[in-house]
Amino acid sequence: MDEVKVIEIKKSVFEDNDKDADALRKELKTKGVFLLNLMSAPGSGKTTTLIQTLNRIKDKLRVAVMEADIDSDVDAVKIVEATGVPSIQLHTGGMCHLDAEMTRQGLDNVALKEVDLVVLENVGNLVCPAEFDTGAVRNAMILSVPEGDDKPLKYPLMFTVCDLVLINKTDVMPYFDFDLERCKSYIHQRNPKAQVIPICAKTGEGVDAFVQWLLTEVDAWKNN
Amino acid sequence: MDEVKVIEIKKSVFEDNDKDADALRKELKTKGVFLLNLMSAPGSGKTTTLIQTLNRIKDKLRVAVMEADIDSDVDAVKIVEATGVPSIQLHTGGMCHLDAEMTRQGLDNVALKEVDLVVLENVGNLVCPAEFDTGAVRNAMILSVPEGDDKPLKYPLMFTVCDLVLINKTDVMPYFDFDLERCKSYIHQRNPKAQVIPICAKTGEGVDAFVQWLLTEVDAWKNN
Repeated sequence: MDEVKVIEIKKSVFEDNDKDADALRKELKTKGVFLLNLMSAPGSGKTTTLIQTLNRIKDKLRVAVMEADIDSDVDAVKIVEATGVPSIQLHTGGMCHLDAEMTRQGLDNVALKEVDLVVLENVGNLVCPAEFDTGAVRNAMILSVPEGDDKPLKYPLMFTVCDLVLINKTDVMPYFDFDLERCKSYIHQRNPKAQVIPICAKTGEGVDAFVQWLLTEVDAWKNN
Repeated sequence: MDEVKVIEIKKSVFEDNDKDADALRKELKTKGVFLLNLMSAPGSGKTTTLIQTLNRIKDKLRVAVMEADIDSDVDAVKIVEATGVPSIQLHTGGMCHLDAEMTRQGLDNVALKEVDLVVLENVGNLVCPAEFDTGAVRNAMILSVPEGDDKPLKYPLMFTVCDLVLINKTDVMPYFDFDLERCKSYIHQRNPKAQVIPICAKTGEGVDAFVQWLLTEVDAWKNN
């Protein structure tokens, strides 16, 4: 295994993040690269979900991963070891989110001509990452069952900006007071168009539906 | 039940947060009020832990609660209904943390002469709240078992600034790959002085130890 590349991300100097994000999306469109921004609270299972997903999709698409973290390299190492998919670690230096320019700094280290899909695993945080358009084509988030079904009420913007909500850790549903239908209705209060897919990243249950969503989205982006 | 008071917190205009936090602590010392800043990721069980704690401590100390949230009033209503302890809701207007001046705006609405202990439930976030001294006498955080035992590696500052780490949801330990001793060793790598108390807020197990810690700390603050 190659050593995982670690990039120290610098704070953006650009003030107009939305403009920069749109420019990045246009560039990705020209290059035929789909960027997925994956967000969640700490410990919701982003990395485990990614491992299950990458192992199902890596023969169908050329994929790369960018793992954003404040400090550690734990996630990028895990991804490479478990899937063989090239992964780089983005250190945010204490910062709580990524914006478009920071995302671009990461992408500068990805061989974009050789990939169809880049997954950006954002910093574990339900607040700040929702406020900054990274330039991704789609936003997805993971809400895990132990966090509770009321989270769309408490972190409204995150649920508003996401095209897809994965409900993870469905295997422990019997041990928590989590009502899937209630949660879906809270999500749709925030964002009527959000798709919701229940998964269990530990066992792989439901991950195929996420893979199918990704394949459809990537195909539409590259061919329309 | 009185209606829960909702305070819309404004962004601080003061630049020197540390100075302001120290001033707030001095003022609280003069008034004999202990302020606890309670932090965690979304869904770790801050509110449930508080309910268990308040019901055990409210006959021993005069307590008030400030619930910080981006938008909703869910938590303050829950606290008042379940404990009868006066609680106010602080709306941060999308902001991801509280600083000392924002905390002071909340305290302006608490009858400080009538309380020994104020608990500030910070915004659910393991990143930003750790960066701002609120003026609290002690910082505590909750890490819940489903989040994983590696969180001290990934959110180092949060664990560095906390005097106490409550490990919550111990009842579901059998269903997760969570090693309590490994977690403690990660915590102590970040902060050798941090105390660690395992609890189950759902059943109340371990909460007495947290109450004892609080009583000791409040007594020391008021009498030394």
